[in-house]
Amino acid sequence: MEILKERIIKDGVAIGTEILKVDSFLNHQIDVVLLSQIGAEFARIFENCGVTKILTIEASGIPIACFAAVHFGNVPVVFAKKAAPSTMTEEFYGAEVKSFTKGTVSVARISKKYLSPEDRVLIVDDFLAHGEAAFGLASLVKQAGAQLVGVGAVIEKQFQGGGKKLTEADVRVESLAVIKSIKDGNIEFA
Amino acid sequence: MEILKERIIKDGVAIGTEILKVDSFLNHQIDVVLLSQIGAEFARIFENCGVTKILTIEASGIPIACFAAVHFGNVPVVFAKKAAPSTMTEEFYGAEVKSFTKGTVSVARISKKYLSPEDRVLIVDDFLAHGEAAFGLASLVKQAGAQLVGVGAVIEKQFQGGGKKLTEADVRVESLAVIKSIKDGNIEFA
Repeated sequence: MEILKERIIKDGVAIGTEILKVDSFLNHQIDVVLLSQIGAEFARIFENCGVTKILTIEASGIPIACFAAVHFGNVPVVFAKKAAPSTMTEEFYGAEVKSFTKGTVSVARISKKYLSPEDRVLIVDDFLAHGEAAFGLASLVKQAGAQLVGVGAVIEKQFQGGGKKLTEADVRVESLAVIKSIKDGNIEFA
Repeated sequence: MEILKERIIKDGVAIGTEILKVDSFLNHQIDVVLLSQIGAEFARIFENCGVTKILTIEASGIPIACFAAVHFGNVPVVFAKKAAPSTMTEEFYGAEVKSFTKGTVSVARISKKYLSPEDRVLIVDDFLAHGEAAFGLASLVKQAGAQLVGVGAVIEKQFQGGGKKLTEADVRVESLAVIKSIKDGNIEFA
């Protein structure tokens, strides 16, 4: 997605060889115009897949899921929670998810009410890095007996291998910007 | 907002005397059509206030902020983070926020880059209960020297006093559904 790549070049900040900061438009401050374009692009890519639900994980995936949902004809969004609030009293599906940027392991949870075997689910997130979040969410879809249509990532850090692992597990992966390497402050796209 | 109250009556679940669960459409599964209507309503209420930025806190405030931002003419959203990721390397404003439903205290953080003295900020969130999150976010706005236009809550639990405290602190509060009491599974609107 050209407009996204241009924005990454313009406003992204490469740190070391692992980290790309895009918090000026994607995951801290949010440019809703760009996010809507991103949502439209996912809707175009997964156009004839019969998507009934967009699944993501809090927090940065939520705006992406919401704008995508609009372009998929207003299907519902469900976001997995990383901590169980006291109001989450019913049964849930759970899967462990490791965060490399936060150095934490949490359990992604969704209430069993919000995924059913009839659902055709698209998982979206801001980054696809090692694939931990995507595999966790895919596990929730499987536990519900729902159909996983694919994983849509805004930015894939190809060198961290998550995309390859998902593809090898027969999951369709579509990333709007794929980064091959980060070196000396430079971002190389695949 | 009538359509919201109707939805709360239809799909909300009252637990004890304190908790209203609305996770089928607002803060776990998300109805993007309703959320867009909510965003439009905030834009109508705060129409001539010169809002330049929508501020919220992760996670449930994010979809509300995003849809509101669209209706305010695509102003940027900023969401405060409850944990500092390793990518948050620059200076930030911070304020302690207590969560009654999670029983935790966290520090709401925003990078100093994303709020400036020129900003006119609308704070939005899913619930206004004891006012902890709203006061925390208002503190971030103040630290930045920005102007706080007001607080927009989707649901205010009036009996928990946050709205009153904010009003007494000269903050404009606009809640789309105000709940007077929750008793025996019944929701009484103000």
